[in-house]
Amino acid sequence: MAKFKGLAMLGIDNIGWIEKDIPKVGPGDALCRPLALSPCTSDVHTVWEGALGDRHNLILGHEASAEVVEVGANVKDFKVGDKVIVPAITPDWESVEAQMGFSQHSGGMLNGWKFSNGKDGVFGEYFHVNEADGNLALLPPEIDICDAVMLSDMVPTGLHGANLAEVEYGETVVVIGIGPVGLMAVAGAVLRGAGRVFAVGSRSKCQEVAKYYGATDLVNYRDGDIVDQILDATGGKFVDKVIIAGGDVDTFDVAVKVVRRGGIVSNINYLGTGEYIKIPRMEWGLGMGHICVIGGLMPGGRKNMEYCSQLLVHGRLDVSPLLTHRFDKFEDLETALVMMKDKADDLIKPVVKL
Amino acid sequence: MAKFKGLAMLGIDNIGWIEKDIPKVGPGDALCRPLALSPCTSDVHTVWEGALGDRHNLILGHEASAEVVEVGANVKDFKVGDKVIVPAITPDWESVEAQMGFSQHSGGMLNGWKFSNGKDGVFGEYFHVNEADGNLALLPPEIDICDAVMLSDMVPTGLHGANLAEVEYGETVVVIGIGPVGLMAVAGAVLRGAGRVFAVGSRSKCQEVAKYYGATDLVNYRDGDIVDQILDATGGKFVDKVIIAGGDVDTFDVAVKVVRRGGIVSNINYLGTGEYIKIPRMEWGLGMGHICVIGGLMPGGRKNMEYCSQLLVHGRLDVSPLLTHRFDKFEDLETALVMMKDKADDLIKPVVKL
Amino acid sequence: MAKFKGLAMLGIDNIGWIEKDIPKVGPGDALCRPLALSPCTSDVHTVWEGALGDRHNLILGHEASAEVVEVGANVKDFKVGDKVIVPAITPDWESVEAQMGFSQHSGGMLNGWKFSNGKDGVFGEYFHVNEADGNLALLPPEIDICDAVMLSDMVPTGLHGANLAEVEYGETVVVIGIGPVGLMAVAGAVLRGAGRVFAVGSRSKCQEVAKYYGATDLVNYRDGDIVDQILDATGGKFVDKVIIAGGDVDTFDVAVKVVRRGGIVSNINYLGTGEYIKIPRMEWGLGMGHICVIGGLMPGGRKNMEYCSQLLVHGRLDVSPLLTHRFDKFEDLETALVMMKDKADDLIKPVVKL
Amino acid sequence: MAKFKGLAMLGIDNIGWIEKDIPKVGPGDALCRPLALSPCTSDVHTVWEGALGDRHNLILGHEASAEVVEVGANVKDFKVGDKVIVPAITPDWESVEAQMGFSQHSGGMLNGWKFSNGKDGVFGEYFHVNEADGNLALLPPEIDICDAVMLSDMVPTGLHGANLAEVEYGETVVVIGIGPVGLMAVAGAVLRGAGRVFAVGSRSKCQEVAKYYGATDLVNYRDGDIVDQILDATGGKFVDKVIIAGGDVDTFDVAVKVVRRGGIVSNINYLGTGEYIKIPRMEWGLGMGHICVIGGLMPGGRKNMEYCSQLLVHGRLDVSPLLTHRFDKFEDLETALVMMKDKADDLIKPVVKL
Repeated sequence: MAKFKGLAMLGIDNIGWIEKDIPKVGPGDALCRPLALSPCTSDVHTVWEGALGDRHNLILGHEASAEVVEVGANVKDFKVGDKVIVPAITPDWESVEAQMGFSQHSGGMLNGWKFSNGKDGVFGEYFHVNEADGNLALLPPEIDICDAVMLSDMVPTGLHGANLAEVEYGETVVVIGIGPVGLMAVAGAVLRGAGRVFAVGSRSKCQEVAKYYGATDLVNYRDGDIVDQILDATGGKFVDKVIIAGGDVDTFDVAVKVVRRGGIVSNINYLGTGEYIKIPRMEWGLGMGHICVIGGLMPGGRKNMEYCSQLLVHGRLDVSPLLTHRFDKFEDLETALVMMKDKADDLIKPVVKL
Repeated sequence: MAKFKGLAMLGIDNIGWIEKDIPKVGPGDALCRPLALSPCTSDVHTVWEGALGDRHNLILGHEASAEVVEVGANVKDFKVGDKVIVPAITPDWESVEAQMGFSQHSGGMLNGWKFSNGKDGVFGEYFHVNEADGNLALLPPEIDICDAVMLSDMVPTGLHGANLAEVEYGETVVVIGIGPVGLMAVAGAVLRGAGRVFAVGSRSKCQEVAKYYGATDLVNYRDGDIVDQILDATGGKFVDKVIIAGGDVDTFDVAVKVVRRGGIVSNINYLGTGEYIKIPRMEWGLGMGHICVIGGLMPGGRKNMEYCSQLLVHGRLDVSPLLTHRFDKFEDLETALVMMKDKADDLIKPVVKL
Repeated sequence: MAKFKGLAMLGIDNIGWIEKDIPKVGPGDALCRPLALSPCTSDVHTVWEGALGDRHNLILGHEASAEVVEVGANVKDFKVGDKVIVPAITPDWESVEAQMGFSQHSGGMLNGWKFSNGKDGVFGEYFHVNEADGNLALLPPEIDICDAVMLSDMVPTGLHGANLAEVEYGETVVVIGIGPVGLMAVAGAVLRGAGRVFAVGSRSKCQEVAKYYGATDLVNYRDGDIVDQILDATGGKFVDKVIIAGGDVDTFDVAVKVVRRGGIVSNINYLGTGEYIKIPRMEWGLGMGHICVIGGLMPGGRKNMEYCSQLLVHGRLDVSPLLTHRFDKFEDLETALVMMKDKADDLIKPVVKL
Repeated sequence: MAKFKGLAMLGIDNIGWIEKDIPKVGPGDALCRPLALSPCTSDVHTVWEGALGDRHNLILGHEASAEVVEVGANVKDFKVGDKVIVPAITPDWESVEAQMGFSQHSGGMLNGWKFSNGKDGVFGEYFHVNEADGNLALLPPEIDICDAVMLSDMVPTGLHGANLAEVEYGETVVVIGIGPVGLMAVAGAVLRGAGRVFAVGSRSKCQEVAKYYGATDLVNYRDGDIVDQILDATGGKFVDKVIIAGGDVDTFDVAVKVVRRGGIVSNINYLGTGEYIKIPRMEWGLGMGHICVIGGLMPGGRKNMEYCSQLLVHGRLDVSPLLTHRFDKFEDLETALVMMKDKADDLIKPVVKL
């Protein structure tokens, strides 16, 4: 049986290159080879924080653009040689959860997330895609294959934050955390018509790019209490929406304290520790302030990829400022992943073009 | 200047009858005299828990049906002698908050609540209604004046819980707390098409009435852990929605642990103590489970009263089982209020018909 | 190859019993045999009005409860011997349309409708179900197998009408047309909390059952203009919502003339003739009255069946009054179908139990 | 009693300057003097098409920025000397319609529109504003007083079109009609995250500005059938949403023929003639295609003005390209109005700065 090489989690704190059998393709599935790849902070959580528990020889990665190399007998819309966008989340579309509009949770909490979680990820010479007709999207020729990698997770996650926050014309939005996902949340808020946008973060490269994506106010926790800084800037007026793209369970305390009654706090940040999310009772209106608190994994699948990609095709969104570090050999993937862990000051995302 | 008598909070833990000047009626306002009155658990919080701080000589009460005795020059839709439903919440309709759909918070958090909060309540021989055209509703002749008192707060609050929970056909709903508001949440869930409805409460009278309103399963915390009882009953399946109508900040822990991804936890319970609402991180999907947590004060004003009253007019909802204790003298109001504090086993709501 | 018998459209105006090969079951599919069957007015349209064009040897029917007799290798949730509810609409769940929430139109307008349209229907000794995990639902033991047939189309279509109309507590709703679908729209409106419900229809059996399902006012076109009758009854006040479950393109003229600004006209009726739906310009507010006009095919699939069935399990909805005529032999299906065409005064739905 | 001068409709086809008594200010009202004014196509309809019937000595105009010169005793948030944005639509906020979210129709269909309709308009030395706290908004100092006039009607109407169409990220949107309202609908679609945007119109100045606001494709009816042109450009794929900002009752035929199942046709165009809006039955899915058709007058009032203005303050929207012709004397208003009637090739909007 043919083998392929991939960059894997060997165990907690331990990555390395391994060989595996090329996966079999079921009647609705596809086999792809990556064209470009990018590591995600989730890969860092998986390996160096053991977020998914101790996994052995699990090929990492869920951000890729790719070429189709094999399709199952029932696949109708994709053929060998097609260049495709690959979503990080590849749901089971027949599931009741998907029918309810929560395909991310098909078969259980977060179970739409399969790459480098339920099965091997995309950091191999080949990777397997379940339900190809539902989970791949053709790469429009206008989109660069490195830019396309940002469509796997960064763009849809950031935009999902703005969607959960139901940002409307002219609203004031706070985005807490301006790593790549937070930056896409800034862009997403502006793309939904936000007026004033506060970007909360301390790294100068991220601040610069936040401005590029339309942030009007930068807030740095080193300059004092975040709540005070925001309410000072607004003259004491609460903001309409908060998108949490960084921090931890305490960040909700900040969010609820700056948001108006009838506002929304939307979370797209993985919360790794802490027993309880902290919602301050008083500012939450003693239970009656109509402040909605919600968080969610990005929607996966083909439809979302197709629509997100239109933003790039028509020049509404330029993701290239996210790609601060570029590599061009498969082997550089390891460097890129470690880079994501070490998060240098000038890093947003590294990308490896194959 | 003419005086009137009313039952007031004299200070914390202290109620009594006082006299006040009959309030002046502005151009858009009305003066009413009650036809029937009911004390609310909120009155108990106000007096015996000092929920609003130490108030002196504040006339209590926000549940009444009434007759109009005077109207301002600009009032168009009401005239002296009209019998009316009076909502507990009487917003400022020109406010930006009302224009945003959150009239409850017109002018500030919960500030649409004026009776026995921002001004004297309805437990007087007379009471003042701001913006009468926007805040009164004609009492349909089909509705009994005692039943009508339940339209001030119990019915719209319970129904608001089911609305916030966005209950849909066939859903499984848990209602935690089955005092009068929780019972109306049970009725509200059924009226929005719920299938299975769990009612969580321990008082036998309330359980009996919960059944009447359509609860299919009764859960008593004395019989063991609530989460276990519910998940046992469903065979481990999560429920669709939870409406919290009792308990405290810890109740959210229970709610999130029984609700599905994409579900909603809706709170209509006044939360008097505790620094933080407790949302369990794991069951909240590590921040990404799409479990919406929201709580809110009932919408006030005329429109809501008119629509809620149609449920009584057309026999969709019978509130009389809530009225377990009936009085017929203004002076009995004091007994009724103390009764609400002491909450005897067979009590749901006392009502005083004048 | 094994054969089976079924009742087919041989051509326009022509039905008869034919034999076909038992269909092959793909990896995700199932083969079922019916337990109970019912003809639908759509079958009548198909055969006697040629609504789908001239079809030859197409087995009819899309309303059935059934038993699973074979499943494909990839089917996880159903096994041979399971008793199931079968939706009339069995979408392709991987399609982009399904991912957008419009599974009814997977692969094209109305293409989620496959039985007796894209393939043979359920009026055979066997029938084929595509994507079984997504399109079947276990029949709860509490539900009678004849009642279950109403879950295929009548219940979900009627309820979809009330859903599209976004019926809210206390609203006044008009249902135009009270055949079985309209009756379920009446029930659906009441189950979503409607107050007053007008049922427009002329057959006395249907009127009687409309009352049973909660209609408060009956309107008969023989008694005069429908618009006049409704506005007279309301004292000139517009109604909140209209659900169209009968009539033709002119019926929208009536609907828009009785509905309020901000109201909704929801159509669940197959419109067989006429070039244009007629929306009266003046009453539609010269284009600016915020009267939403929408129509749609019922959502198919497992989730909808599961949730609809809960209404029967928990006694929220009793469909047995729809089943006015009962048969118990497969051969009676022909009589039942002709009966549906001839629509006797006392007929709502015939059902054949096998 | 003091008099003031204004430009009025004297009768159909007849305008002129008249004198009137300065209106009295009720307790909640304000008196304003304009800072800048613009005529609207609605003024043209009113005078030269008699759209509101034959009116005599009605002062025209509903687009203005202004200064407050007097306020009633109950006005809390505005004082003499404040510079304000004035919405074209100034609802009665206590009305049931406003409480339902349809303030435009407070007191009856379109009755939130008062200027130059229910009372004198803004084309006078003074004009009266009802419910000032609810209907004025402070002019942020960052906004030019001529730009501010576009906030009265053009911006909120165009954006309302995109809101009714519920434009989402990456969607393909067609805007039919690219006068000033249509141009703001193009901008509104882009501001809500549209991908591809078709602008349908023939005037070259408007096409140029449509491109500026983000239209990706221009369609001219002179180049052939609009439906064909659009479906050719998309390769036969239906578009997601259509916003109608021009044309007549036949335009809906075009719109429904290009939109997908589950799409929305949103109208913001005044429909002056024709008995019925024409919805083509086949393409509307025989009544079951889930194509929503809705149209509505812009929401008025303070909240909408405040939020729209934030788009200008933060540089999300630049309205100056709309202002193709500028005047600086009150008397020029007559020229500007006639210009709006004659609609020269290079005209979008004239504005008069006082």
